[in-house]
Amino acid sequence: MAMKAVRVLDLCFLWLLVSAILLKSADCHRWNKKLPKPCRNFVLYFHDIIYNGKNAHNATSALVAAPQGANLTIMTGNNHFGNLAVFDDPITLDNNLHSPPVGRAQGFYFYDMKNTFSAWLGFTFVLNSKDYKGTITFNGADPILTKYRDISVVGGTGDFFMARGIATISTDSYEGEVYFRLRVNISLYECY
Amino acid sequence: MAMKAVRVLDLCFLWLLVSAILLKSADCHRWNKKLPKPCRNFVLYFHDIIYNGKNAHNATSALVAAPQGANLTIMTGNNHFGNLAVFDDPITLDNNLHSPPVGRAQGFYFYDMKNTFSAWLGFTFVLNSKDYKGTITFNGADPILTKYRDISVVGGTGDFFMARGIATISTDSYEGEVYFRLRVNISLYECY
Amino acid sequence: MAMKAVRVLDLCFLWLLVSAILLKSADCHRWNKKLPKPCRNFVLYFHDIIYNGKNAHNATSALVAAPQGANLTIMTGNNHFGNLAVFDDPITLDNNLHSPPVGRAQGFYFYDMKNTFSAWLGFTFVLNSKDYKGTITFNGADPILTKYRDISVVGGTGDFFMARGIATISTDSYEGEVYFRLRVNISLYECY
Repeated sequence: MAMKAVRVLDLCFLWLLVSAILLKSADCHRWNKKLPKPCRNFVLYFHDIIYNGKNAHNATSALVAAPQGANLTIMTGNNHFGNLAVFDDPITLDNNLHSPPVGRAQGFYFYDMKNTFSAWLGFTFVLNSKDYKGTITFNGADPILTKYRDISVVGGTGDFFMARGIATISTDSYEGEVYFRLRVNISLYECY
Repeated sequence: MAMKAVRVLDLCFLWLLVSAILLKSADCHRWNKKLPKPCRNFVLYFHDIIYNGKNAHNATSALVAAPQGANLTIMTGNNHFGNLAVFDDPITLDNNLHSPPVGRAQGFYFYDMKNTFSAWLGFTFVLNSKDYKGTITFNGADPILTKYRDISVVGGTGDFFMARGIATISTDSYEGEVYFRLRVNISLYECY
Repeated sequence: MAMKAVRVLDLCFLWLLVSAILLKSADCHRWNKKLPKPCRNFVLYFHDIIYNGKNAHNATSALVAAPQGANLTIMTGNNHFGNLAVFDDPITLDNNLHSPPVGRAQGFYFYDMKNTFSAWLGFTFVLNSKDYKGTITFNGADPILTKYRDISVVGGTGDFFMARGIATISTDSYEGEVYFRLRVNISLYECY
């Protein structure tokens, strides 16, 4: 009997050990290669029509800054290096510009490489539809010529309270220097 | 006696099960509707006086970018669409511009909608007072005409090491296009 | 014997209590002063050569915005207040501009104080070397004249999936208004 009780004690001690290890790993200090599954995943599109001096009625973005000597209705050479645009773009569930918008993508981007097309983005999805209510904020580098680019979801509000994750961006379509459409595959790994 | 020991074993096993479940939920993958309580909550105010060409002595912000053809001492029409300002604004504990500042709000905002007043904000509270030492960084869309707007707390340093949360902004006062005061209700949900 | 079993029960109960407390603290609501150890820590350098009208061949950044009346090839007075630059700077493992780059620092900074040198930074390390593959995104105020300044790591991708933490920046060198080199000590406290 004494042995049995001791075995129980051992078991408790073992469990204490295992728990301590698990607790440690449950804490926010992790460095391993297996990625977790997202707690939420969905795809949205947004559509950017840049102002070129003639399309004020339907432009959704405009250049507001550029290097010395540049005009703000013409994209600079050098892969648009230094052009900074602010935008208020419609978000749709599919790739059709004329689909009913579920919200607005609001923020800014600028082109930051002279020898290739590359941008940096800071923007927020302001969503207000049956399925999505709240905001998601994004930050990151966008190497435009790469098919899939990962940027960071740095925060959210409403349905997306405290969200964090990764958005995989791809250029779904573009028309010269006036229109582009981005497909945004949002994977949240912290949800409440 | 044997039965008692077995019951103890059962209890341990049960606890193992319960712990495993709790540990799982303690991990960072959550998607439920009940919001947690903030680990820290406080209110601060900041005051923005925008440069209009005549108030260099007390202006705390200045337009540095605007769409083609605009002057940087006059807000654009179209709800200031495309105006981008950088700022270094005093932060106070109450709504009085002349109260002793507890820090500076530093960053930028730009107006990004043509058909209504709306902005996007990226800024940091640099706090240095008895009660607050450290920085808090914010990102998000600010639909100005809405009474309460939520933006994201994306990071912090010092007392606010690794902070995340929500800041609920409201326009506490404004005077034409020269002065505005924002009330910022900061709720942190990740604290160290 | 009965007493022994009871003691075992007590032990289990005690452990249940301790676990519950630990689990609570393992959850994401923490507010205590002891800082955790970083799960990853490393140092990188980046090098910024600003365009001054004459160095187009090797400039890595350019002013794209400034207050009313300013030229974009000359830094403004007032501690460069209102100057906004976009950059695509080489990142190196040591403090030598000519070392093989391990990636590019891409983003923007602007000077936001009139009475001292201070900036605000939003940028991403786009890393692509043997040891580092992925992106790290930073946000925060940079009081340049302070020896060590903490800014926030707000997200990451690839090897730095979902990273959060603190970057301690110091000005390692500068040459007038054309070149500066920042040492970035990155401490991640959330790793996967």
